[in-house]
Amino acid sequence: MLKQYLLSPGPTAVPERVLLRMAAPMIHHRTPQFSAIFAETKLMLEQVFQTKNDVLTLASSGSGAMESAVINLLSPSDTMIYVNAGKFGERWGKIAAKYNINAVEIKVEWGEAVDVSAIEAALEANPEAKGVFVQASETSTTTEQPIREIAQLTGRRDNCVIVVDAITALGVIDMPMDAWGLDVVVSGSQKAFMLPPGLAFIALSDKAWKMTEASTCQKFYFDLANERKNQVAGKDTTAWTPAASLIIGLNEVLKMMLEEGLDNLYTRHQILAKATRAGVEALGLKLISSSPATSATGAYVPEGVNGGAFVKYLRDTMGVTFAGGQDHLKGKIVRIAHLGYYDVFDICTAFSAIEIALNRFGYPVQMGAGVGAAQAVLAERFPEQG
Amino acid sequence: MLKQYLLSPGPTAVPERVLLRMAAPMIHHRTPQFSAIFAETKLMLEQVFQTKNDVLTLASSGSGAMESAVINLLSPSDTMIYVNAGKFGERWGKIAAKYNINAVEIKVEWGEAVDVSAIEAALEANPEAKGVFVQASETSTTTEQPIREIAQLTGRRDNCVIVVDAITALGVIDMPMDAWGLDVVVSGSQKAFMLPPGLAFIALSDKAWKMTEASTCQKFYFDLANERKNQVAGKDTTAWTPAASLIIGLNEVLKMMLEEGLDNLYTRHQILAKATRAGVEALGLKLISSSPATSATGAYVPEGVNGGAFVKYLRDTMGVTFAGGQDHLKGKIVRIAHLGYYDVFDICTAFSAIEIALNRFGYPVQMGAGVGAAQAVLAERFPEQG
Repeated sequence: MLKQYLLSPGPTAVPERVLLRMAAPMIHHRTPQFSAIFAETKLMLEQVFQTKNDVLTLASSGSGAMESAVINLLSPSDTMIYVNAGKFGERWGKIAAKYNINAVEIKVEWGEAVDVSAIEAALEANPEAKGVFVQASETSTTTEQPIREIAQLTGRRDNCVIVVDAITALGVIDMPMDAWGLDVVVSGSQKAFMLPPGLAFIALSDKAWKMTEASTCQKFYFDLANERKNQVAGKDTTAWTPAASLIIGLNEVLKMMLEEGLDNLYTRHQILAKATRAGVEALGLKLISSSPATSATGAYVPEGVNGGAFVKYLRDTMGVTFAGGQDHLKGKIVRIAHLGYYDVFDICTAFSAIEIALNRFGYPVQMGAGVGAAQAVLAERFPEQG
Repeated sequence: MLKQYLLSPGPTAVPERVLLRMAAPMIHHRTPQFSAIFAETKLMLEQVFQTKNDVLTLASSGSGAMESAVINLLSPSDTMIYVNAGKFGERWGKIAAKYNINAVEIKVEWGEAVDVSAIEAALEANPEAKGVFVQASETSTTTEQPIREIAQLTGRRDNCVIVVDAITALGVIDMPMDAWGLDVVVSGSQKAFMLPPGLAFIALSDKAWKMTEASTCQKFYFDLANERKNQVAGKDTTAWTPAASLIIGLNEVLKMMLEEGLDNLYTRHQILAKATRAGVEALGLKLISSSPATSATGAYVPEGVNGGAFVKYLRDTMGVTFAGGQDHLKGKIVRIAHLGYYDVFDICTAFSAIEIALNRFGYPVQMGAGVGAAQAVLAERFPEQG
């Protein structure tokens, strides 16, 4: 027996009560019974998005929802600006290329946040740009981006929206869609929503919906206006067959999130992130990001340690699954997740495992050093007594 | 307490061992552990498709896979022929319209099978047509279509393929993809595959793959060549995040299907379908279809009975969920499913419920008359003794 721990930034662990609710016998999705669940779920989703807009649920991965944002807002030969600060930022450019959209790239060093003045300059150089596409949290580099400040730039323009990939940010950090003027927010099920993959979410502001009317990109499954017509309150259904068991799981997950309270949820994530950074530093490891994410923390493995073998050893020999690096960070980093169904002792487990593994890879660290530094922060989760 | 029975043609009941397997803690989808499950699942899928081609798994509903067939094979202003014999046939035309594809409609009376000579005539009148798009089983009218004969027509042409929506046919009837020369076969998880909705499957012949190379329809998420590059043996992964818990459920479901044996599985479905038709006739009800499907049986409710209220009463008061009718069959029919995780006593339950409900709606039928006629056929499932 080797007990398994999933500490990757998506998929994340699914709470037991959610697994069990999804294991209930199937119900039909074209019934008042399912529609009641769907309607309640949608309202809760909107609370988590902090929006009065409709939050639409799609049966797809997050990449499908990213594509839907591009092809519902823009038309071939339109101009968009996108922040390429990692693997997921790069994807905006790949989608745009497929649709002959003129995509202006703002390339950012991996691990850095984009300079807001670079966005401003790009907007000035490309006044025809209809959108700025950016990750709230770039998972490949565990870096947070200044979406609030970017939204202030797009907010001043009549014909330009901000499109935020919040796949590893929503339900992690406080990013109120309406209050911050975020026009389009995309998320997915297998991150802070603590579900298996298979659902994506997208919400559009009035300004963004208006823009969709002029879009001539061809689409059928990802036609958001058609989805909205079906998903609005009173209709409470989906254009295509919904991934019903995942939506039922989502209903349970959202109850958990709202029972905890959004403020408590954000604070928990902040504490876990801060503790993880403290642990990394105590072990003398270097953070990848100068604007570290609240969802996951990436650290370089020590010189001389093969990061690929290290992550594989942790997973296959020790039973603890972290994510490694992608592209040019491949084999160089380990990413420790702390979004979703994670709390104090998951972070302690993460460092306990990393410390043992580092020693096993011939890089001596004091056992408990990272754990202890993390604990000192994690104690904030528990009130003083006596 | 009101015990619930799901007897609709999708979603269908999910076997307990599958529900429980999907309720196991999440595993990461970019690991050798998941890839091993994925590879094994793909091989089993190919056995059920009866093909040497790659069967690709998508995180979407069946409609997404239908769209993917159109946009990967064709280009704007190409010509296709489609059979519109019901709600799902009509969808081919809607997809084509979104992509400016010239779609030649063969309209068929609801409940009828298409006349193969009409396909032949359409092919002759439109020699540039690159595909014939058809449902193997049109769920809205519970009607089977002569796909084998249509495949013989397309098989004789170099530049024309048959595209089969087998969403309620695959795993129900024997429709060997390779032996029958079916170029593209599409299916979905929530039918004979006995899973919740959220997965779709598609396989292409060499002839169809060749055609994809010339396709200029814009696509990103549904780019099948990109999926194949990732899903082929040895790669064993997906282009986008897979709906992992459903794929793990699929692994279990396919084991069940292959343990039963495909021949036994087809025979079981045939017996259930024949028994259901016998029950319908014994109650003096009229079948909708002159080419009745093996997946589900549609019958007109008696004159004077409101079909909408009838299906609602069965579901809400009696706990038995059937499907009603769509579009111009709305309020006029009841559809009894018998695909997937159904056996003898589900059919007996269906008629027990329908007979009670008919009497409650003031249409007197002999209690047990439909059940008895069904039983006489269903007995074939059990060997004679003594």
